[in-house]
Amino acid sequence: MMRVGFAGLGIMGRGMVKNLAAKGFPVRVWNRTASAAEGLGVKVEVAPTPKALAESADVVITCVADPAAVERVVFADDGVLAGARPGLRYVECSTVSPELARRTAQAFEAHGCAMIEAPVTGSKLGAERGTLLFMAGGPAALVAELEPLLLAMGTRVIHCGPNGQAALMKLVGNGLVSFMLEGLCEGLIVARKGGLSARTVLDVVAASGFASPYFTFKGDAIVRRDFDPHFSIDLLIKDQSLLLAEAADQHTPLPGLAAIREVFQAARAQGLGDEDIAAVVKSLERMAGLGEPSNEA
Amino acid sequence: MMRVGFAGLGIMGRGMVKNLAAKGFPVRVWNRTASAAEGLGVKVEVAPTPKALAESADVVITCVADPAAVERVVFADDGVLAGARPGLRYVECSTVSPELARRTAQAFEAHGCAMIEAPVTGSKLGAERGTLLFMAGGPAALVAELEPLLLAMGTRVIHCGPNGQAALMKLVGNGLVSFMLEGLCEGLIVARKGGLSARTVLDVVAASGFASPYFTFKGDAIVRRDFDPHFSIDLLIKDQSLLLAEAADQHTPLPGLAAIREVFQAARAQGLGDEDIAAVVKSLERMAGLGEPSNEA
Amino acid sequence: MMRVGFAGLGIMGRGMVKNLAAKGFPVRVWNRTASAAEGLGVKVEVAPTPKALAESADVVITCVADPAAVERVVFADDGVLAGARPGLRYVECSTVSPELARRTAQAFEAHGCAMIEAPVTGSKLGAERGTLLFMAGGPAALVAELEPLLLAMGTRVIHCGPNGQAALMKLVGNGLVSFMLEGLCEGLIVARKGGLSARTVLDVVAASGFASPYFTFKGDAIVRRDFDPHFSIDLLIKDQSLLLAEAADQHTPLPGLAAIREVFQAARAQGLGDEDIAAVVKSLERMAGLGEPSNEA
Amino acid sequence: MMRVGFAGLGIMGRGMVKNLAAKGFPVRVWNRTASAAEGLGVKVEVAPTPKALAESADVVITCVADPAAVERVVFADDGVLAGARPGLRYVECSTVSPELARRTAQAFEAHGCAMIEAPVTGSKLGAERGTLLFMAGGPAALVAELEPLLLAMGTRVIHCGPNGQAALMKLVGNGLVSFMLEGLCEGLIVARKGGLSARTVLDVVAASGFASPYFTFKGDAIVRRDFDPHFSIDLLIKDQSLLLAEAADQHTPLPGLAAIREVFQAARAQGLGDEDIAAVVKSLERMAGLGEPSNEA
Repeated sequence: MMRVGFAGLGIMGRGMVKNLAAKGFPVRVWNRTASAAEGLGVKVEVAPTPKALAESADVVITCVADPAAVERVVFADDGVLAGARPGLRYVECSTVSPELARRTAQAFEAHGCAMIEAPVTGSKLGAERGTLLFMAGGPAALVAELEPLLLAMGTRVIHCGPNGQAALMKLVGNGLVSFMLEGLCEGLIVARKGGLSARTVLDVVAASGFASPYFTFKGDAIVRRDFDPHFSIDLLIKDQSLLLAEAADQHTPLPGLAAIREVFQAARAQGLGDEDIAAVVKSLERMAGLGEPSNEA
Repeated sequence: MMRVGFAGLGIMGRGMVKNLAAKGFPVRVWNRTASAAEGLGVKVEVAPTPKALAESADVVITCVADPAAVERVVFADDGVLAGARPGLRYVECSTVSPELARRTAQAFEAHGCAMIEAPVTGSKLGAERGTLLFMAGGPAALVAELEPLLLAMGTRVIHCGPNGQAALMKLVGNGLVSFMLEGLCEGLIVARKGGLSARTVLDVVAASGFASPYFTFKGDAIVRRDFDPHFSIDLLIKDQSLLLAEAADQHTPLPGLAAIREVFQAARAQGLGDEDIAAVVKSLERMAGLGEPSNEA
Repeated sequence: MMRVGFAGLGIMGRGMVKNLAAKGFPVRVWNRTASAAEGLGVKVEVAPTPKALAESADVVITCVADPAAVERVVFADDGVLAGARPGLRYVECSTVSPELARRTAQAFEAHGCAMIEAPVTGSKLGAERGTLLFMAGGPAALVAELEPLLLAMGTRVIHCGPNGQAALMKLVGNGLVSFMLEGLCEGLIVARKGGLSARTVLDVVAASGFASPYFTFKGDAIVRRDFDPHFSIDLLIKDQSLLLAEAADQHTPLPGLAAIREVFQAARAQGLGDEDIAAVVKSLERMAGLGEPSNEA
Repeated sequence: MMRVGFAGLGIMGRGMVKNLAAKGFPVRVWNRTASAAEGLGVKVEVAPTPKALAESADVVITCVADPAAVERVVFADDGVLAGARPGLRYVECSTVSPELARRTAQAFEAHGCAMIEAPVTGSKLGAERGTLLFMAGGPAALVAELEPLLLAMGTRVIHCGPNGQAALMKLVGNGLVSFMLEGLCEGLIVARKGGLSARTVLDVVAASGFASPYFTFKGDAIVRRDFDPHFSIDLLIKDQSLLLAEAADQHTPLPGLAAIREVFQAARAQGLGDEDIAAVVKSLERMAGLGEPSNEA
């Protein structure tokens, strides 16, 4: 069985590591703060550096918060590349720009290693339960070879193309999420001002042809005013900005997303950056001159 | 069994009348052009005017294209109100502004009649199969009384509140549809410019937590370049404009919808008003300097 | 000398009437509330109705707040049309939609009368000093005939085309004002957050090739936090909405103006509708999480 | 008299160098392509590298196209910093981000040198005629010391604050220009569709309280369909993007500018990136389903 090195024990990484260990993979981990490895509930060794992680592994998986963290894990003097022997497989699960994904892949190839990208969707719950969806980018044969490893943490792998394409797919997905949430919230504000109950709106949407479990999930959180972060406004703005930058490089206007990002930016400017993306509804309420709903939105 | 008068034999009305007749309701119809009653496949009498329709019915249902058509059917000299005896029930299934719904209800009440609004979602196919979803507005007792009639044409009735609230709910729903479609199309353009296949995007979305049958339905139409109208750009712009006007009356800013409507307006200005709302993708393609996709988007 | 009937003694109308009287025109006035004629400082007779005003005049000028007020003055049972003898000249100075301007002109022509539109720019101060700019629409000969009358109240008349074109020009002008003000305010917010003084921004703009007296005038008001209305947010939103509606009828997307209107709508929703349009800066400050500036913006 | 090294002989730099030489400053120049120094019409020596330029100068002025070019001129192995003796003055006239301006200033300070930033407005014509407006950032004493040098190339220096503030001011100014041009073009499209002549619109604007020489200049170019670049769409998008990025870092939503940038991006995507920013009107015409105007817009 492949020896796995796993860099990043955040919300997603913890669940992924537990599933890998539970399926019998020998796992060593590295995290910026070593204490993150405590309380995982499974036995894993801790490596002192990403370099050390790479030296003792057949495959290294990284799942960290942002492109800057990826740069550190991979390219630092004590990074994965520094410890990579020819033949090492590298799996990038972080959300990065397509350009960074391609650049990282080229760096590994130049070392005689190989990389696929495998950003995920499915949230914290999916990571814990092992039901993640992986968007994979990279050579088809390598994606096929590593699919069993990914399926230890998830239920589905969709191959999107060469390295960079899965990063792009991830950004496109989070763009779509931005539209869905903004649309739901604008509708809920109009409904509230018009005396139409939020529960009724959610019931109708759920019964319609444009229903989505996402509307039920986020709509319910909004009605309960529960903005505990599954996915924070700060992180979504980061992804919206990466997508807008990618589109600008491509010469693609995105008039809807550009407008929507400014509403999320207003939410962040008002101190809501750490709250769940559903808290964008609060920014729209303030624009509309509304206070917090008394009871039920 | 209630005698039903049905005004409006458009795409939706035809299916609804067939289902009413099939369930045994005696139905008389009226349409602006009488020939529309031909080829219905069920036996219905044709009334010469909405007034005549009202004179011989216990309940009159209207399902026409826009507010102007509703004004004609209800308020003209030979309109429904002119033929309404006390006790008549009136059901407004057309998409109108909340203000028109309330004004129509007051006019019927002043005549000793009663009205509910019951706009639908479910498209042409839902009308034919009798699987429509009705959003009902009006007095709860009257909605309950007329529910069996509605369920002859659909599978669900959700009571939204007094008259006007179902109209508002219908507009909120079509606003949400606008966001979903614009978001999908902006994503597909970025994907196409980035070399990521539309089929892959649709597969990932369908496997994700933000999946919706709507994305599959419209996404598939876009890939097949099938813009035969289920719901035309002209009609959606009409609804977006009604929602923006309602929001302006309420003093509710809708920054996302305002941006999105302009993209649909570009599509209409470019001659796509009669095509399905999915054809908005063509307008975005032109903005992005893209031609028609060669094969698969 | 032409006998003038003047309907509307608001902020603009008062100054215009004073200038007409000062130049020797015999003026009768009508206003919704007759007391408005007090304290004008010039001797004018008061007519009991617009009809009476028309019966004793060679030319009737109307300058009222909105299209609904114009409809009342012209088309009511005791309106101008009811008192119009063949040969009467009618001058519409109110801001209306092109469609209402054309419809009014047709109504006068059907009575054997003739109309020009002459909306103004120049604000309260221009009305008092007689330095207004008139945008004129209507037959060229009639515009030429009435030019001396207009120049009693202003310094310039620009003929824009047939009736309706001056109304359109007025809306286009207020659209442009919306862009200039929103652009100035967005810049001032970025400057303030970046520690760059508003006075410096205004100095640079005033010294640049894109200088405008308008930036100096409104920028100075913003720095002094003086939002006493010269032109209120409510009225500008009305004109933005008329322009967007006209553009929608024409099938013209206006992506910039659509976005900008929502910011003004936020200001109105937050209770700033009666303040000067420069108060839109407060809405942007709130979006950006800023409080009132302590001293100098 | 100070010995001046000047890096960058583009459209702006050529005029600036000619004015410096004409006022008697001894000038050496460097340009990426040495042939650019030909045909200047004044006698200047050519340095082989920015390093050589710095070694023989009391003050180095840089005016190049973008932040990447600045990085090369200043930080490369043969860059200005490599040749800078303690006491050298450095003047950055290029348009850069506030962050790059601050970083560059710190680098010079660390070498015992001193820097001011002095981005300009005034276009090619202003550079030739020596009528530029300089926005200066840096220590007040140093700005005062270098003001005579700047006034050899321009007519006014406005001190904006420490290094970084003039860069911010420059971006704010180009943001405002974006609003003015988009507003003018949206107005011209509505006018054209409504049958109102562009010349009439420009005449009214020029006679109004919101007049600006900029509207006359760009409006005239649009009517003549002269899109020869004074300031290209590519360069303006670069500045809009720098301003949006700066605003994002500050947590400042810019809803108007975000919408406007997408219209310029559409123009670029349609192949107009090298044309003057006034060519954005073509993109709006296409959105509105209009062809090229036949004669006069």
